[in-house]
Formats: sequence, C-alpha cells, structure tokens
Amino acid sequence: MDSEVLQFQTGNQPEARDITAQVAAFVAGKGDGLVQVFCPHATAGIALIETGAGSDADLLDIIDHVLPPGFGYRHQHGSPGHGADHVLPAFISPSVTIPVLDGRMQLGTWQSVVFVDPNVDNPTRKVRLSFLKG
Amino acid sequence: MDSEVLQFQTGNQPEARDITAQVAAFVAGKGDGLVQVFCPHATAGIALIETGAGSDADLLDIIDHVLPPGFGYRHQHGSPGHGADHVLPAFISPSVTIPVLDGRMQLGTWQSVVFVDPNVDNPTRKVRLSFLKG
Amino acid sequence: MDSEVLQFQTGNQPEARDITAQVAAFVAGKGDGLVQVFCPHATAGIALIETGAGSDADLLDIIDHVLPPGFGYRHQHGSPGHGADHVLPAFISPSVTIPVLDGRMQLGTWQSVVFVDPNVDNPTRKVRLSFLKG
Repeated sequence: MDSEVLQFQTGNQPEARDITAQVAAFVAGKGDGLVQVFCPHATAGIALIETGAGSDADLLDIIDHVLPPGFGYRHQHGSPGHGADHVLPAFISPSVTIPVLDGRMQLGTWQSVVFVDPNVDNPTRKVRLSFLKG
Repeated sequence: MDSEVLQFQTGNQPEARDITAQVAAFVAGKGDGLVQVFCPHATAGIALIETGAGSDADLLDIIDHVLPPGFGYRHQHGSPGHGADHVLPAFISPSVTIPVLDGRMQLGTWQSVVFVDPNVDNPTRKVRLSFLKG
Repeated sequence: MDSEVLQFQTGNQPEARDITAQVAAFVAGKGDGLVQVFCPHATAGIALIETGAGSDADLLDIIDHVLPPGFGYRHQHGSPGHGADHVLPAFISPSVTIPVLDGRMQLGTWQSVVFVDPNVDNPTRKVRLSFLKG
C-alpha cells in the first residue's frame, strides 16, 4: 500500500486548513482506488467542506457552539477548553476515504479536504495519506 | 475499481432518503470487499441509521438543533440557513464504507444507508458508489 | 477479505469501551492495508479518541448535551431518551477505517478505538472487523 505522512506547522490558533492540493498530488498517476486521509492526533479531524466562502471559519465557530469549551470536562490537561478538543474527533472523524479514478479524487466542485484542528497547544501536525488500489 | 454514480431528484425540502436498495443492488454478485458510499456535494452527508420508525425525520430536526440555521454564519450564499448546510458535512460525513461479504452488505437489522440533504436550493443530487474487492 | 465479528456484553449504562487491543490483535501479521471497524447497530458508533484521561466519560456527557434525551423525538420505542440513541450514528459513525502497516495500526500516541454505545436496552453488542490488503 502506498502510504506517506504530510507534516506541517499550525499556529496557536484553531485552524481549518485546506490540504486538497497535497492529497491530489499524492494520488496523481495512481489509477483507480480509494485514498484514505488519516490524522494520528486525538484532538483533530478531517472534514470535506467548501473553503474560501466563509464555511471554514464558520466550522471553527460552530465547533465551539456544539462542543462548548466551558462544558464541565473531566479532562484537565492543556489550555482552557482543551477538554472540548478531545471529544471533537468523535464528531469530526480523523479518518475519511475518497474515491479516486484515473489518479484524480472524485470530489464535487465545492468539496475540499480540510484538516480541522482546534488544539492550540501542539503546532506540529501530521496527516497520513494511504492509497488502496481498486 | 467498480464505481458508478446514482443520480436523483430531491425536492425543496430537507430530506433523509433511504438508498439502501440501490447500494444493495450495486454490490450484488461482487463477492467480498468494501463498498464506499460518497456524495460529491458540500452540503450533504451519508448516515447509517434506522428508517421508518421516526428517526429519519428526527435526524432532520436534530440537525437544526445542533447546527442552528440562525447562527451567525459568514457564508452568505443561497437560502436563509444555507450557512448551516455548509458545516453539516463536517459532522455527518459525505463518505462511509460498509463491509460486503458474498455480495451482501453486512448491515445490522435496523441499519439503512441514508442520504442526508438539508439543502433546499439544489434538487439534482448524486451519490457515487465504489467497490473495492477484498 | 479477512473479516470477523467481536461480540461482547455491555451493561445497562451508556458505555465508551476501548477495543484497541482487539483490533490490534486482528491486524497483527496481516501486512499493509486498511482495517475497517464497523458496528452493525443503529444506536452505536465508533470513535477514535483518547481513553484513560477523562475524555471517554466526557464523550458520554457531551453526547447528552449535543443530542438531548428530552428533545421531541418521534421515535418512541425503548427506554426514555432512546430517540436520541437513534440519531447518534449520524454524528458518530458506526464505520471507521484505520491504516495498517506491517500488521500495526498507524494510530497516534493518544488515539484509541472506542465503541460508543449510549443504548441501555441491548447489552449484547457486535463489532465487525475487516481487513483490506493494500
């Protein structure tokens, strides 16, 4: 199985980072199959949403609404609100598969692959890309 | 990889449409593997839930509770509340895989494959089905 | 495709059960590929979260916040609040895939595979594990 790890730096702000171009480059020339996008972090997820028209910023806001930082979390490590970061991957999974035909992801016009990371404590982040040939 | 696109019309109402029969027909005779159900839209998701006992309608209601249409979304295109539609796929993913043995999905008794579409602006919808042989 | 079913008993309490060891045992020696973890229940999901530092209990609490048991669900079977259990799998999917290299899941340090089951009515639960060789 073709598998490789992207590594990048996020800042000390919650981030919704478009990684579509990197995934597209990974599958180019690989024929038909499924690409699996996986982040090996306990406080981040992968979303397929539109970027560039406000929805990526909307997602970070609505995450704070759905999973309030001030909820009475037991988890006490890290910055205030870090308990919320730790339940996020149950709702926004760190694993998604995307169909690939002739080396191209079959995304819709408005879909991007987005790394969603509310965690402000750890700026070094990884995403593993794996290709399963069909 | 076997891959094909279902196309259908939804109306101008939010919809939770059971597409189990179409996915079952797609995998019939294909042996063992994973079927991936993927919708190439930025405002829809795929859920595995029970249908026919109220939960499909409950899901549309609870989506409005979890992701309120009146939240202050930046995204300003489309009908009122369309900003909520655009964060939905982060929570209800447009991609799901289901195990298949001997041409049959290994769903539980009460599980159906449901296309979840709160978007009232675009009635022509697609779902791509792909089969990866095991 | 290698595929087998785990069966276990949950009690009459909502449960977030760590099944990482069982999935690790299933993929051991199988080389490279994707493992798919799938629960054939309409009221449970699979989450990749940290366990042992409070977040598994936090998840059960936040589920009740996000999907309130007292919301006006149409679904009327089972114990009070069972309507909420039936929309849970739309948000916490019963299906997740994890990359495997050389017989080992490529989980991050803090990630565990967790069976999430708010349903108090049915203590006999199953999880299907399938391995697709890469």
